[in-house]
Amino acid sequence: MADNKTGLELRSLIKKSGELELSLASVPIPEPGPDEVLVRVEASPMNPSDLGLLVGAADMSTARASGTGDAPVVTAKVPEGAMKAMGGRLDESMPVGNEGAGVVIKAGSSEAAQALLGKTVAMIGGAMYAQYRCLKARDVLPLPEGTTPAEGASCFVNPLTSLGMVETMRREGHKALVHTAAASNLGQMLNKICLKDGIGLVNIVRSTEQADILRKLGAKYVVDSTASSFMDDLTNALVETGATLAFDAIGGGRLAGQVLSGMETAANKTAKVYSRYGSSVHKQVYIYGALDTRPTELVRNFGMAWGIGGWLLFPFLMKIGAADAARLRQRVVGELKTTFASHYTKVVSLQEALQLDHLAAYGRRATGEKYLINPNKGG
Amino acid sequence: MADNKTGLELRSLIKKSGELELSLASVPIPEPGPDEVLVRVEASPMNPSDLGLLVGAADMSTARASGTGDAPVVTAKVPEGAMKAMGGRLDESMPVGNEGAGVVIKAGSSEAAQALLGKTVAMIGGAMYAQYRCLKARDVLPLPEGTTPAEGASCFVNPLTSLGMVETMRREGHKALVHTAAASNLGQMLNKICLKDGIGLVNIVRSTEQADILRKLGAKYVVDSTASSFMDDLTNALVETGATLAFDAIGGGRLAGQVLSGMETAANKTAKVYSRYGSSVHKQVYIYGALDTRPTELVRNFGMAWGIGGWLLFPFLMKIGAADAARLRQRVVGELKTTFASHYTKVVSLQEALQLDHLAAYGRRATGEKYLINPNKGG
Repeated sequence: MADNKTGLELRSLIKKSGELELSLASVPIPEPGPDEVLVRVEASPMNPSDLGLLVGAADMSTARASGTGDAPVVTAKVPEGAMKAMGGRLDESMPVGNEGAGVVIKAGSSEAAQALLGKTVAMIGGAMYAQYRCLKARDVLPLPEGTTPAEGASCFVNPLTSLGMVETMRREGHKALVHTAAASNLGQMLNKICLKDGIGLVNIVRSTEQADILRKLGAKYVVDSTASSFMDDLTNALVETGATLAFDAIGGGRLAGQVLSGMETAANKTAKVYSRYGSSVHKQVYIYGALDTRPTELVRNFGMAWGIGGWLLFPFLMKIGAADAARLRQRVVGELKTTFASHYTKVVSLQEALQLDHLAAYGRRATGEKYLINPNKGG
Repeated sequence: MADNKTGLELRSLIKKSGELELSLASVPIPEPGPDEVLVRVEASPMNPSDLGLLVGAADMSTARASGTGDAPVVTAKVPEGAMKAMGGRLDESMPVGNEGAGVVIKAGSSEAAQALLGKTVAMIGGAMYAQYRCLKARDVLPLPEGTTPAEGASCFVNPLTSLGMVETMRREGHKALVHTAAASNLGQMLNKICLKDGIGLVNIVRSTEQADILRKLGAKYVVDSTASSFMDDLTNALVETGATLAFDAIGGGRLAGQVLSGMETAANKTAKVYSRYGSSVHKQVYIYGALDTRPTELVRNFGMAWGIGGWLLFPFLMKIGAADAARLRQRVVGELKTTFASHYTKVVSLQEALQLDHLAAYGRRATGEKYLINPNKGG
C-alpha cells in the first residue's frame, strides 16, 4: 500500500499461445458503495480448489521464474491437448483465492456496513489473493471477538464442505459415510464432526502415517487402500457402519468402484432373497476432487442400485437454500477454534506465494502440508 | 400336458461345483386359489434381461448338450472368478422368463378371476418359460379382443422400459434424450414414442445397418460411434436437441463418458462465464444394460455437474407409484399393435429353446434377432 491508492492482486493468465503467466497486478483500491465494506485481506488459504484456477492445466514441471522480487512473474507451458478445456478463460487475467479473512478498514454509509468497521471478518467469493477486497456487507461473516484473520481464513470451503457431506447424508437417507483421502485437512474436520454427532465414518487412507493421524483424532474406522487386506477391511467397516454414501476426493482409478463393490458385498451379507440385479440398497459415491486425474474405472460388480456423480459445495448450498446454509455457517463460527480449526505449515506473502518451490509444494498436495497467504505480510 | 397333472418348466441351476445346468422340470399344474387364474403360457420373449438369470456367469463356449430330445439338458462351466457373484443362487433350481402371454384356462371362485376365464392375458413376474403359470387375477393384464398371445408377449419389459425413460426425462427436468444400442427392439419402440410425443432423441448406433433401421422409422438424429466424426456428430446432435439425459444399454468402455463429454461441450457453447468447474448444467447417464461387460471408463472432462447410475424398471415403477404405473400400462395396451409391436425372428418350444445353436444366438444379442418361446408349441 505504498501509495494508498493501489493494492496488489495475484493474477493467473492463460494465453492463446499456450502459456500460463502468474503475476501480481497493481489495481486501484476500490471505494466501497453504501452497502459495501473494504477489507484488508490478512489470511487466505491455498486450497486444492484454488490450485485449479491458479495453474489451470499447465505443466508445472516447465515453470520458470522471471520479473523482480517485488513483482515476480512465473510462466509455464500448457500441454496442447489440455488447451481445449481452457477455452473459456483464454487471454483473461483472472484473480484467484476462494476464501479469506481480514479487517474492515472502510465502510459504506449504510448501517450494516458501518457496523462492521474495524471488525475481523471472513469472506468467500474469489479474488482473495489480494491486499484489498470490497464486498457487500451482507456477504461477510463477522468473527467472534478474539478471533484472528488466520483463524478465520478457512471458514467456508473445508468447514462447509464437510458439513455439506453430513447434510447430504441425512437428506438422501443414508446413515453413515465413507471418505477417501481421509487424512486431509477436510477429512480431519469431517472426523471431528462425525465423532461429535455420533455418525459412523469409514476413512480410506493411502499410508500408515495417514492412518495414524486419524486414529490419534479418535477415528474408529480407518482402512488403508495400499494394504493387501484392503477390500476385506473396507467391507467389514461397511458392514459395521452401514455406510452407503461415499465422498471421494481422488476421482481417478478404481477406488470409487471398489467402494461401491464393498457396499454391495456388505448389503448382500444381510440379503435374504437372490436377485440377479444385485441388492436393492442404493449405493452412492460423490466425486468432489481430482487428486488422481486418470479416468475413473468402474468394474460394475455392484448390482444396479448405484450412482456416481460430481459434488460441489456452491450448487449444494444453492439447493438447500439460504436458511439452511446460514445454519451451517453459524455452526462453523461457533466451533471455529475446535471442530473447524485449520492448521497451516507455512504463511507466505503474495510474492512468496509465487516462488517456484512453493508452487511445487501446492502441486504435491501432500497431507499435512497447507499454505496460508497473507497478502499484507511485510506490505 | 401328457397327464393333465404336470407341466414343463425351464430351470437354471448353478451348482457349488461351478457347473450351470439348464433343464426342463416336470412340475404339478397349480390349482388356482379363489383370487387366482391359471394361464396356459403360449408366448414368452427371450429378453437380454432374461439371459442374465438363464445362463448367469457361465462361459457358454463350454456348453454341452445331453439328456433326450424331450428332456434336453445343457451344462456349462462357470469361471471360478465369477462364482462369488453367483453366491446368492447356488444349488437353487431357478425358473426363468420375466414376461409372457397366454390364455386363462382355469379361474378361482372370485368374480375378478371368473371374469378372466378364456381371456388372453399378458403377465409379468418370472417363471414364464413354463407351460402353466398361476397368478393373482389382479396381476394379469387382459388384452383387447383380437390380440394373440404372441402379440401380447412383450407388454411389459421393453414397452414400460422405453416409456419409463421418457417419464424419467420429464420427472428429472430434462427435455430430450440420448439412447445407446439404439437400433434394438427397445430402441425402436423409444423412437416411435419420441416421434409421436415430439421429443428429441439422439440415437447412438454401432453400424450403418443399425443407422438405416432407425432412419427408416423416421429417426432424425442417428450417430454412429464407429465413425471417425463420432464426437462431432454427437455434439452437434446434443446442441440441436438439448439432450442432457442418456440411457445406456452398453455400460462398459468409454461411451457413457463420451456422452457426458459431448453434453458438456454442447452446454459450454452457450455458456457466457468461465467456470473452472465446468458448466452448471446437470448431465446424467443411466446404465440399464451390460452389452459390454468391461469396466466403465470415465475420462472426467465434463465438469462437476454430472451423474451416472444404474436404472432398473421395477424400482422405477415402485418409485412412481401404482397410479402412474397403471397409466403407463394402459398406454401400452392401447398402442400394442403400433408403437409397442415386437417382432420375432424365431418361435421355439421349450425343448428347442435349449438347443445349443439357439443358446449361442441369445448370447450374440444381435440387433434384429429376437426369440419368442411358446412353451405349448407342439405340446
